[in-house]
Parts: sequence; structure tokens; C-alpha cells
Amino acid sequence: MKNPGNRRDFMKLITASALAPALRDSAGSPQPGDTASNSFNARVEKWDVQEIALRSSKSYSNPFQEVRLECRFKSGSHEVGAEGFYDGDNQWKVRLMPTVEDEWTFKTSSNDSDLNGKTGSFLCTSPRPGNHGPVQVQNQYHFGYADGTPLFVLGTTLYNWIHREEALQQRTLQTLKESPFNKARFCIFPKWYPYNRVEPPLYPYVKIGENRFDFERFNPAYFRHIEQRLKDLAALGIQADLILFHPYDKWGFSKMSPAQDDAYLHYLVARLAPFRNVWWTMANEFDFIKPAKNWNHIFQEVDKSDPYGHLRGIHNGRSWYDHSKPWVTHCDIQLQGGDTYVTALGARMKYGKPVLVDEYGYEGNNMMPWGSLTGRVETSRHWGVTMAGGYASHGETYVHPGDILWWAVGGELVGESPARLRFLKQILSETPYQELQPLPDAVKRGTALGKKGELYLCHFTELGDREKFELRIEGAGAFSVDLLDLWLMKTYPLGHVSPGAHVFNLPFVPSLLRLRRSAVTGSKTQPLPSIQDLLQRWESQSG
Amino acid sequence: MKNPGNRRDFMKLITASALAPALRDSAGSPQPGDTASNSFNARVEKWDVQEIALRSSKSYSNPFQEVRLECRFKSGSHEVGAEGFYDGDNQWKVRLMPTVEDEWTFKTSSNDSDLNGKTGSFLCTSPRPGNHGPVQVQNQYHFGYADGTPLFVLGTTLYNWIHREEALQQRTLQTLKESPFNKARFCIFPKWYPYNRVEPPLYPYVKIGENRFDFERFNPAYFRHIEQRLKDLAALGIQADLILFHPYDKWGFSKMSPAQDDAYLHYLVARLAPFRNVWWTMANEFDFIKPAKNWNHIFQEVDKSDPYGHLRGIHNGRSWYDHSKPWVTHCDIQLQGGDTYVTALGARMKYGKPVLVDEYGYEGNNMMPWGSLTGRVETSRHWGVTMAGGYASHGETYVHPGDILWWAVGGELVGESPARLRFLKQILSETPYQELQPLPDAVKRGTALGKKGELYLCHFTELGDREKFELRIEGAGAFSVDLLDLWLMKTYPLGHVSPGAHVFNLPFVPSLLRLRRSAVTGSKTQPLPSIQDLLQRWESQSG
Repeated sequence: MKNPGNRRDFMKLITASALAPALRDSAGSPQPGDTASNSFNARVEKWDVQEIALRSSKSYSNPFQEVRLECRFKSGSHEVGAEGFYDGDNQWKVRLMPTVEDEWTFKTSSNDSDLNGKTGSFLCTSPRPGNHGPVQVQNQYHFGYADGTPLFVLGTTLYNWIHREEALQQRTLQTLKESPFNKARFCIFPKWYPYNRVEPPLYPYVKIGENRFDFERFNPAYFRHIEQRLKDLAALGIQADLILFHPYDKWGFSKMSPAQDDAYLHYLVARLAPFRNVWWTMANEFDFIKPAKNWNHIFQEVDKSDPYGHLRGIHNGRSWYDHSKPWVTHCDIQLQGGDTYVTALGARMKYGKPVLVDEYGYEGNNMMPWGSLTGRVETSRHWGVTMAGGYASHGETYVHPGDILWWAVGGELVGESPARLRFLKQILSETPYQELQPLPDAVKRGTALGKKGELYLCHFTELGDREKFELRIEGAGAFSVDLLDLWLMKTYPLGHVSPGAHVFNLPFVPSLLRLRRSAVTGSKTQPLPSIQDLLQRWESQSG
Repeated sequence: MKNPGNRRDFMKLITASALAPALRDSAGSPQPGDTASNSFNARVEKWDVQEIALRSSKSYSNPFQEVRLECRFKSGSHEVGAEGFYDGDNQWKVRLMPTVEDEWTFKTSSNDSDLNGKTGSFLCTSPRPGNHGPVQVQNQYHFGYADGTPLFVLGTTLYNWIHREEALQQRTLQTLKESPFNKARFCIFPKWYPYNRVEPPLYPYVKIGENRFDFERFNPAYFRHIEQRLKDLAALGIQADLILFHPYDKWGFSKMSPAQDDAYLHYLVARLAPFRNVWWTMANEFDFIKPAKNWNHIFQEVDKSDPYGHLRGIHNGRSWYDHSKPWVTHCDIQLQGGDTYVTALGARMKYGKPVLVDEYGYEGNNMMPWGSLTGRVETSRHWGVTMAGGYASHGETYVHPGDILWWAVGGELVGESPARLRFLKQILSETPYQELQPLPDAVKRGTALGKKGELYLCHFTELGDREKFELRIEGAGAFSVDLLDLWLMKTYPLGHVSPGAHVFNLPFVPSLLRLRRSAVTGSKTQPLPSIQDLLQRWESQSG
């Protein structure tokens, strides 16, 4: 317990309030008629979802458009305004993700008298283990949970996975559970493209004909399904990076009017923002969506509607959005060729924000240049971003029977990179990675990330050939040296060296040379062993 | 005269040596027989080409392969070894670009007794105005001539221009003369692709059938033609960025054996390295050439053969070569989408070498994404590289009658970007541009290049909308402020400001805010004018 004083207050409040809470009108009178089914939770865990469900006896030709519902939530001086939404069957809901462990009260306002002026109170309790709250920017370039726990983001890509048959979705969840990934990118709207020619089980809008939809009427079941997947992912500790628009469309969801887009954004934020693992990505390949949308407006609309300030980014095709705009929380990048380290480093310097390379190409065999990378190249590109102090997302495009590609629709992972990316995450997690800086001057013929005088990670993807690698270590005392085989995922301790300039060669790549300030005194240090020495030593170790 | 003492020595030498020089054999005897036509120049300007021409009375089945000719050139303690080459008609040549203003002697060695042991001496005189020598790396990130003059590189692209009809080549030279460009990229081998389906007037190898060539026998006329173009470009002050290999081939020049490639490299370097405006670019889109070549070897072969250390780079398709290798002098980049500033900045930091973005897309209308940029986008991408302290190359792909595209085959420039790039070059040339650093921290919502406390160039491509631009100026005293309209190419003096944080908005883009430390005292400074003030002022100026 961080705050036992508060804890006592909670117990008192719990005793004082009914465990089965009563919704009251603003005069405090009990509820009449069919509003008996109105409900909310008496207790809700911090960063969980409180949901107030209300019924109206009135009838509307379009309840999505004709009814306005808002709710003010208060806890002490803390106040949150939330928009409600129509959930079908004459039921409206309004949700809160409480961020203060204390008693909360609320009061609704609506143009429907059945929904207006409803009040109540509830208790927000301590988060259970594993609930660290929503993820935010931490230490300028990094990510962390609301409770302060840092998050080393390791993403994967699952564009259309929630729009396929339930059995496949369950297999995907099982795969994710066993994977190293803690963020999944996927689209709110289904995708229609060579990698998914399957109609989704549900549509986001009411269907009014063959491939025709009423963009003024949402299909609540569609969004309830997404909410279930958000909960499933949260239970696995996985961030849901939700992509709001994309160009791979046959149904017209990418070509709605600006007013319809706005209604969609408000509906989505009202429903989903209270889920703590939500990230908002405005688009997949925003610049490929025609006609072009006003992305500044879309960002601002999401920003002002979301009371919790979930992370906001946008994914590019060829051209980049200006990530320096104040409503962009992190710099989301698709790379088209080039060097992942260079781009991530440049973006970090230009924008001064976390860099997230969400697309650098995929391990697989789909015959496209971007989907035919070997596991080695996939791993190497991911390391490039990591060495620049950034984060990245994996994808896998091996083509399985039935045109099942992980990156498009989920299923199983069979590639070589996930295990190596787990190793990457483990290596970085054993460091104070939010304190590490790219150190391009510390190394020649490789890349370095570290904290000068304390810790150096040096990454190499090429053998030295006739050239030597050079490393310059600042500081005093001695540094322990480990050579890590990033492909075989083995660690070889090499002893200790003194600070200064070191020239060496490598017996294998991809490799990471890790130097850590050590308690060993300088007199115990030695030069780095020669390749011959190393090879001999490892042969004897494995023999 | 930089060194009058040396000058006197020269005069003495000129008097001492014959103005019509005589080639002698190693015993000093005069030349017998048909070697009377042997020749070289008695005087050669520093950084010009000395050429020793020799004839042999012997006959060979393949003179390119059977005869070895080398020459040692000496001037005081300075010594240069140069390979000779067969130039057809029983004539061999060996060339030198003398770099020391003094008397030189030489002596040949060959397995052909007619070519062996020839000696002579000549005088290297001062360079005439306009001859600054070859271009090298200067101040780590920049380029400059051998005499110390810096070169603000502004490139253009002319892949196949030397392989078309002479009249078109002459028009291209005329266009270049009036253009702002001082570097042209073009291929040694002709290109065959949708933008050039015209056979070249000459082939680099002896033709032995329909589309069949003898890769063991060069066509000297082909290379003499290239040499003429090198001289034409030198006369215009234009660097010749020679591309040694490329994938757009129908004749087999990209698929020769490694031994044939080596012979080609040696022949090329022997002939062309003595031309001072030569740069070596190993390939255009090296990673698209199949089967892949051993690029490390090719770089090293050029490096060791070229006595002058001309600049060496390599141009990528999707994947980058490792520019940190010691034989790479500058980081040559083709960008596939993304942000030119970010990539150039990251590359500068990673490699610690000059960054040259030789391909960022082309102004034109050829319907391809990379060849359909507006002049505004072309200009903006070029500025992006400039603001990162790098250099770049323009290209133009407007389709003219007869499928004449500047970028492919030359002709005329009609685009909007060249004038703006001339303005860019002029603006930078008015600064100590080799001392400027990218200053990503100095500005929010734009980019900055400058010298802290002295000079700031701040580049903006977007209007502020509801956001403001922020600028942080260090130092003391006052700074003069100019706002430059980079599209209309106008400069508006805005007065003087004090150092510190400035928030402002922009009346137009693309714009450059230029702040220069000024002699005006701080008391004369004022805040930056408002947009309304600016617009009023400019209306009155232009009215």
C-alpha cells in the first residue's frame, strides 16, 4: 500500500455507501419505471472501466444523432467530463477510467430527460498487481505506465486480426500470450486487400444493401467485440495500438464525409478511451488515403475528446506527417528502405519525442520486397532502431494455407525473429534503458548506445573483414565486457578492460559488445582477447 | 604568388629544359624508328593532365591484356605511380595529374621493350584562375577544392546524357552553363530503360554481333568521348560524378565477370583519374544489380588504383551500403520517401562524413511517384538536406517530345526548382556554411542550422496554423533578422531582436528566418513584428 491513510478512507466510504449502488435523479429520488435496469459499479479498480448504463423510454428515428449525453465525474478537486454513447436497445452508456483512488461522484446531463441529471457515487480502489495504468511518454524519448513503471515497447503487427473468424482470433491471442510482444497494431475498420479477401463477421455500420452502409448508424455489436479484444489484450499485458483510418477499403469507411468521420471519432473515443491499454494511431499510411483527410483536425478532435490523453501518432506511406505538431505524442514511422538506425536517430533529434518505427519490413515470403525479409534482416532492422534509442514493431508475412499471414490476420508465428527480439528486449530490460543515449562518436564501424562512463552497448552487423572495429570508452576504473551472439542468443563474458580506445575484430555477427562499469580494479584488466582466443574459448565451452 | 621562392626555381628549370621535350630511353639515347611520334607536354598546369603517348612496333592478339605499362613520376620527394592504357592504333598512354608546382621526371616500365624505360622531364606550372584542383572532403562534413576553396555542392542528375546524339549533348552543356548546378551525376555505361530506348553512338567494348560485345577489348573512342565531356564540364566548373555500374542494362555491361570488372576499373582509372573534376560513384542503385558484385572489392580496387584519392561513394536502391567503411569518402544516399532532413541528420551523425543525398525524387510529370514532384516539393526536400548540413542533387523528369527527360538524357530545364536552388546556394554561400551545425534544439516546428551565438538559419515549410513557431537564440547583443521568401526569392529585413526565446507566426512558406549577430546595440532591438504588420509592410513595399 502506497498510501494507507487513503486506504482507511476507502473502507469508511465503502461502509457508508451501499454495495449495490443506486442511481438517483438530481433531487435524490429513486428511479421510476423501466430505468430500474440502470446500473453502474459500486467499486472500480483504478484505471479499470466504470460504466454507467442508462435506459430511455423515448423513441428516436436516429438515437446516435438525436441524443446528447454527457457526464461529469468528480473526486475531490479532480473532475472528468465524458461523452456518452448509444449502445443499442434503448440503452445509453457513459464510461470513465478513474485515475484517483478515492470516492467519486457523477452527474449526467442530456437532452433526453430519462438520461438527464442522474447521479451516483462509487469508490475507486487500488489497482491489482499487473495493472499499471495507461502508457504515456516518459523521460521525453520513452514510454512508461501511469504508475511510473517503464515499458520497453516491442510491437507486432496484426492489421485485420479482429475482423476474422473467432477461432482464428483465439489462436492469435494464444500466440500473443507466448510471444515477447507487448504492443499490437491493428485497424478499427476491416481491411480488404490481397492479404485479406474475407468479409468481416460484423460491420461497424448498419448494412443497408450489398456493400452499402448507413454511415449515420453505428453497429454497437461491432464495437463491443473490439472492447472484448481490448480486455483480452490487457489481460496479456499488451498495448492495443488502434488504427483509426486506412486506405485498404472496399466498404467506403475510408471515404466518409468529414462530419461522419467526426461522429466516428467521438463514438470511438467515448467507448474505447476508458480502456487503459488504448493507443490512438490516426491512420495506417495516411498519405495513401484519397481523398486526403484533414489530419490536423482529426488529431485535434481525438486529443480534445479523450480525457486521458492516450498516446497519439500517425503512420505514413511515403511522406511523413509533421510530428513536431503539439498534438503528436510520439513519432510513428514507416521506413521505405534505408537504414533504420539513421532514420530513428535523425527523427529523435528532429522531434525530441519518442521514436516508434512501426514498420520497417516484415519477415516472411509473400514475394513483395517489404514482406520477404529473412529473420536476420528483420532482427537487424529492429536492433537499428533500438540502438538509436527508439522502439519498433515486428511483422511476419509467411504465407500459410488459406492465405493466413500473421501480419494481416494473425494465427501462429513461425519466424526466426521473435525469439531474437525477445533476447533484444531482455538485454535492454537489464539496463536503465531510459537513461541510455545514442553515442555515434563512441564507435567506428558499428553503433553504440549507452551512458558515458557507465554502460556501453555496441552493435555490429558486419564482420570486420580487413577493417577493425574501434571503440572509445570514457570514465575511470574497469569495465566488464560481454560479447553477445544475437543470433544464437548466447552471452560470452570476456573479462575486464580499462577505459580508452580499443581496436578489435569480431568472430560472428550480429553481435553486441556490452561494457559495464565494474567493481574490479583497473589492475585486473586486460586487452580484449583476439578472435583466435575467443574461438578457442568457445569451442572448449561448447565441447 | 603564394611561394615566390618556388616560382624562381620554376623559371630556372624552364630555361634549363627544352620547351619541346624529348623522350629518351633509360640510357639517355634518342628514340629510334616509329617512336618518333612519342610525345608529352613540356609544361603542364598544376591539376591539369600530363599525357605521355608511346608507340610500339610490336603486334599483339590483345594489346589490352598482353601489355603492361606503368610510369613513375617524381618531383623532389613526391612520387606517383600511374598505370598506362592502350588507346588503339598501337598507341599506349600514361597520364598524370601533377599536384606539385616544380619540375617532374618520369620513367616508364613495361613488358614491351618499345614502351619500357622511357624517361623525360617537364615543368608543372601554377594553376590558372578557375583551376582549384580536385575536390576533396573538407572539415569532416564538407567538400572543398585542393587549393582550399570550399565548394557548396549543388548537384543535378543526367544519367545517360553522354550516350545520346551530339547535338543533344551540346544543348545539355549550354543548359548546364546557365544553371546553378556544379555537379552532374552520369553513368559510364549507357542506360536502357523506359526513359532511354536509344542505342548509344558508341559502345565501351568492341561489338562482335547483334547486342554482343567482346568484354576483353575496350573501344578507346568511347572513352575519349567521355574525356571530352570531362573537359567540357571542367570548363563550366562542374564536377563529373561518374557512376561506374548500374542495373539498367541490355548489353551485358552489368553482368561481366569479376575479372572483366577489374579490367574495366583499371582501364577507367588509368584514363580518367588524371581529370581533376572526377568523382567515383561505384554504382547507381548497387543493390538492384544482379548478380550482386563484391562492392568492397570494387571500392578497394578503385581506391588503390587512383593516385589522387578522388571522392568515392555508392548510391543505393533500397538498402544502404555501410558508409562507415574506410574506403567510403562520403555518404551517398537515395531516399525512398520519408523526411530528407531526418535522414541526412541521422546519416551525418552515424557516419561522421559528408552527407550527399543524390536522389530525393525529381520535379516532373513522368507519372511515377518519384518523378512527379512539384517544384515546391523538390525545393523543400533539397532544403531539408541543406538544413542538416548536407548536400543534395536535383533531378527533372518533365516529359518532352521524343521522350526527352533532363534527368535521363539532358536537354533543357523547364522546372521551377532550379531558380530556387540557385537562391539556396546563394544564401548558404553568403554564410560560413562549413562552420554551421544542425541545431535541432534551437527551434520548434521547423529546422535550424547555424553557429550558436552568431548565425541562425531557420527553415519552415508549413504555416503555423493555430500553433506558433518557437526559436531560441543564444548569445549576447543584438541579431539582425531577415525573413526570406524561398519561393518568390525575396528577402525582407525585419529589424533587430535580442537573444532569448521568440514566438512568432509566418505569413508565407517556404520561408527562411535568418538571424545574424549585429553591431546594433541591444537597446535598438524590438520584438518580431506580427503577421499583420509584416503583410502591411510588404504590401506597401510592393505597392
